[in-house]
Amino acid sequence: MNYVGIDIGGTQLRVAIFDKARKVLDIYKTDNDHGLTCEQNVDKLIDFILKSQQYFPLAGIGIGCPGPLDLKKGMILNPPNLVGWDNFEIVKYVEGRTKLHVELNNDANVAGLAEALLGAGTGYESVVYMTVSTGLGGAYVYRNQLVNGAHTNAAEFWNMIVNEDPYGHKSANPGSLNEQVSGSGLTRIATERFGRPTSAKELFEKFYEKDPVAVDIVEKAANTLAKGIANVTYTIDPDIIVIGGSVAIFNSVFVKMALEEAKKYICFDGGTVKTAKAIFGDDAGLIGASLLIS
Amino acid sequence: MNYVGIDIGGTQLRVAIFDKARKVLDIYKTDNDHGLTCEQNVDKLIDFILKSQQYFPLAGIGIGCPGPLDLKKGMILNPPNLVGWDNFEIVKYVEGRTKLHVELNNDANVAGLAEALLGAGTGYESVVYMTVSTGLGGAYVYRNQLVNGAHTNAAEFWNMIVNEDPYGHKSANPGSLNEQVSGSGLTRIATERFGRPTSAKELFEKFYEKDPVAVDIVEKAANTLAKGIANVTYTIDPDIIVIGGSVAIFNSVFVKMALEEAKKYICFDGGTVKTAKAIFGDDAGLIGASLLIS
Repeated sequence: MNYVGIDIGGTQLRVAIFDKARKVLDIYKTDNDHGLTCEQNVDKLIDFILKSQQYFPLAGIGIGCPGPLDLKKGMILNPPNLVGWDNFEIVKYVEGRTKLHVELNNDANVAGLAEALLGAGTGYESVVYMTVSTGLGGAYVYRNQLVNGAHTNAAEFWNMIVNEDPYGHKSANPGSLNEQVSGSGLTRIATERFGRPTSAKELFEKFYEKDPVAVDIVEKAANTLAKGIANVTYTIDPDIIVIGGSVAIFNSVFVKMALEEAKKYICFDGGTVKTAKAIFGDDAGLIGASLLIS
Repeated sequence: MNYVGIDIGGTQLRVAIFDKARKVLDIYKTDNDHGLTCEQNVDKLIDFILKSQQYFPLAGIGIGCPGPLDLKKGMILNPPNLVGWDNFEIVKYVEGRTKLHVELNNDANVAGLAEALLGAGTGYESVVYMTVSTGLGGAYVYRNQLVNGAHTNAAEFWNMIVNEDPYGHKSANPGSLNEQVSGSGLTRIATERFGRPTSAKELFEKFYEKDPVAVDIVEKAANTLAKGIANVTYTIDPDIIVIGGSVAIFNSVFVKMALEEAKKYICFDGGTVKTAKAIFGDDAGLIGASLLIS
């Protein structure tokens, strides 16, 4: 049997056919064309799947997509970076056209599932995935299954409150991780502190040049991330925390600083929690989506 | 088959024989006599068990005990309120004398297990138990089993960091829930604010009399607890949070205030999370200990 993964992104749509070991058999990428309806965009992927079905017997289709989602209804709600996809009942639509079983989950959850089952978290009973990218997200995989939570809000670490930072951001809590550690949070803080538009990338460049303001911003962010790691530990105490996302992957010294800070807050085993760097990068979403089908 | 529960406390030791439905068949209580060794104290319970064994076939013995514990070694480490029990390998000792299977877990975990399997959390897949008592503790029960965590630190909510309160307490983190919400935390704060020794009980009496300082302390504590509830929701998102412990049970208006505050921080379903009041009170530990054996 073979397994389909679909990765819905703001700019690109991807679909791949995997064998049972999640080796890619065929792949198709296309723009998320804002001139088309969401049905028309998805039709491009479905056409590929229907064609593939002639060569590969397919067990089902897993879809990874930015949230918020309504998993019970198989519906995309109103993700800020998916223009024109609001309230799209994507599961029903794809099932209707392909007659295959379809599963949906959010992008961080499927990436975490890939890391837990086939990546840096393989073999552990309890895996937490934290992704520090434009936003901060996560996944919680227990005994090889995603824990979605009662309102599909498990591992939504972005909104965890750790201090009294005064900034809020739309629906994010003041003092939440997202506002202080994510790429967008760091961009906001750097822009304020430098008095001109400053991206997270530029912030880290200045940090590596030992600019004192940049060092201060990054040190504070590392301390904030450390509190988040401690809180996850005092709630789930996973066997391993897999850390991914562009901000973390491209700035491993930042992650190292956070883990060093976390020792202050974790009162066992010398404050050391087992962590690993995510291995899949951009492909995590596509592989993980296919893992929604077993 | 029947099941033994042992509840180890700083002042009292209890043991009970339960049937499969956890109806009490026989029970024995005795002082934790500080003039005896821990072995001698436990011998009193073992004598009762050995005698009971003549009448009831026993499947095994579950022990609930204040932490910290080493579950792998079945050992009591150094609980502050269990004088003379440090480094006692209680599982080995009780197994040796009874030849029965013995399981150990901490008092909050076994109380949570009782609530999840037979109490206010019955029937839910994912149950978080929070106890606000002298200390703040918890349990996480998923699919009818305790999640202990890699270092038995799952659901150790007492040390979760939610703000920048400057106080620490031995091993507790500054800004942690324990320092600001537990009975001992509230006693510390009330004593400081009133300038004389003030217990948590007296604080709440003053609060009910609308003393403005007491109202301010309790309102801040409710806000802090709300942040803890939000963080648990954004990490585990359980089906239900069962709230117990003397501070919560005797001051339900305090819990109500915290849940009202939590609506600010939880961005779905109008901020309402399902909660319930713990039902077992003092017996939770004894019943829950017996549930460690199945």
